Amino acid sequence: MDLFRTPCERDSAAMSTDLPITPRTRLRRKPARGSHDRAVIDAILDEALICHVGFATEHGPCVIPTSFARVGDRLYLHGAAASRMLGVLARGAEVCIAVTLLDGLVLARTALHHSVNYRSVVVFGQAVPIEEPTAKLAALAALLDRVAPNRSAACRPPNPKELAATAVLEIAIAEASAKIRSGPPLLDDGEDAALPYWAGIIPLHTSRGTPINAPDCTLAWPG
Amino acid sequence: MDLFRTPCERDSAAMSTDLPITPRTRLRRKPARGSHDRAVIDAILDEALICHVGFATEHGPCVIPTSFARVGDRLYLHGAAASRMLGVLARGAEVCIAVTLLDGLVLARTALHHSVNYRSVVVFGQAVPIEEPTAKLAALAALLDRVAPNRSAACRPPNPKELAATAVLEIAIAEASAKIRSGPPLLDDGEDAALPYWAGIIPLHTSRGTPINAPDCTLAWPG
Repeated sequence: MDLFRTPCERDSAAMSTDLPITPRTRLRRKPARGSHDRAVIDAILDEALICHVGFATEHGPCVIPTSFARVGDRLYLHGAAASRMLGVLARGAEVCIAVTLLDGLVLARTALHHSVNYRSVVVFGQAVPIEEPTAKLAALAALLDRVAPNRSAACRPPNPKELAATAVLEIAIAEASAKIRSGPPLLDDGEDAALPYWAGIIPLHTSRGTPINAPDCTLAWPG
Repeated sequence: MDLFRTPCERDSAAMSTDLPITPRTRLRRKPARGSHDRAVIDAILDEALICHVGFATEHGPCVIPTSFARVGDRLYLHGAAASRMLGVLARGAEVCIAVTLLDGLVLARTALHHSVNYRSVVVFGQAVPIEEPTAKLAALAALLDRVAPNRSAACRPPNPKELAATAVLEIAIAEASAKIRSGPPLLDDGEDAALPYWAGIIPLHTSRGTPINAPDCTLAWPG
């Protein structure tokens, strides 16, 4: 199944080009924290392991967390072909995909100067179902390679039956923005600067722990 | 400003009671992973530092990450009074709030048995703006106390001008569900069980690092 191991052919090099600004991606609050630069957007997308997918249902808005992968200028989602979310999206519903990395808690001397350091991206658009097996396998390989480098080559690829039971959707990164807050709290001024309260950052780290073998696996972790 | 330091009076003890199941919270995919138990839901809400808020706009669905706090059977959001999201929600729009904790990456011998260990909650409903200053200050105190224990008592509370510029919204935890996946990968069967690929879990940890003082702060971190 070499097909499965073939990387998608789209250019995945970081591109420092700005996406056009639309009514959905114009930054309303604190625009100085925002960016439409693809290189900034891509770096955030590539570090995150999950996204939150927002879509409309007959009962109102719905947000579901799921894994994803970026390949070039496309995002890929996957799941059971019977998934309601993937079904709604495959029929062309508008979607908003949010990706958030939390970097730290920001503590100030005053209550309302407290903040959070983060890097986030929102991508708006419509999904397209990927039906062609080669493209579908390539997208699933990209999703696996987010879990561990080259993991798609270190497991059995989907067989035709599994592939038929799996839906893969593609969303163009064409209407998107990033937002970043970093650094210390805003300087307190006047009397506030003399308040006897600690101010600074508590960094937040996400890390991978020691791999734990499945009960029926006696191989050593190859990573 | 003792008001600010008064904890909300709603009972915050864990309640092992099931919420009613609605069309929005009926678990469609893998219902065995789901729960409507308030104690399960509350534990996930209380561990997470941010949520993703989904709502409809005239341009389609929108998902925005933000901090939140739970007090008893209510969630609280806050932000600038001029925030578009808070304005939309304050006018009674349906909202979906998703909270996700990522616990591990699950690697199997076959591509499509790969998974993610996670604990997530979705809360559906409508927000109510909190205008009364005492209640507003109590909600803001709860938000601050998520950052560090008793932080609301270790900073200057909002003054009336700051309070007027800040919107606080309340959402009842009345229509909600949790979903949890934990443990090793599904057992591979037949020929798959003999495949020479590693299987198991890579745990993911979120941790707080050493606090970093703001440039103008010479106090020692009190935590």
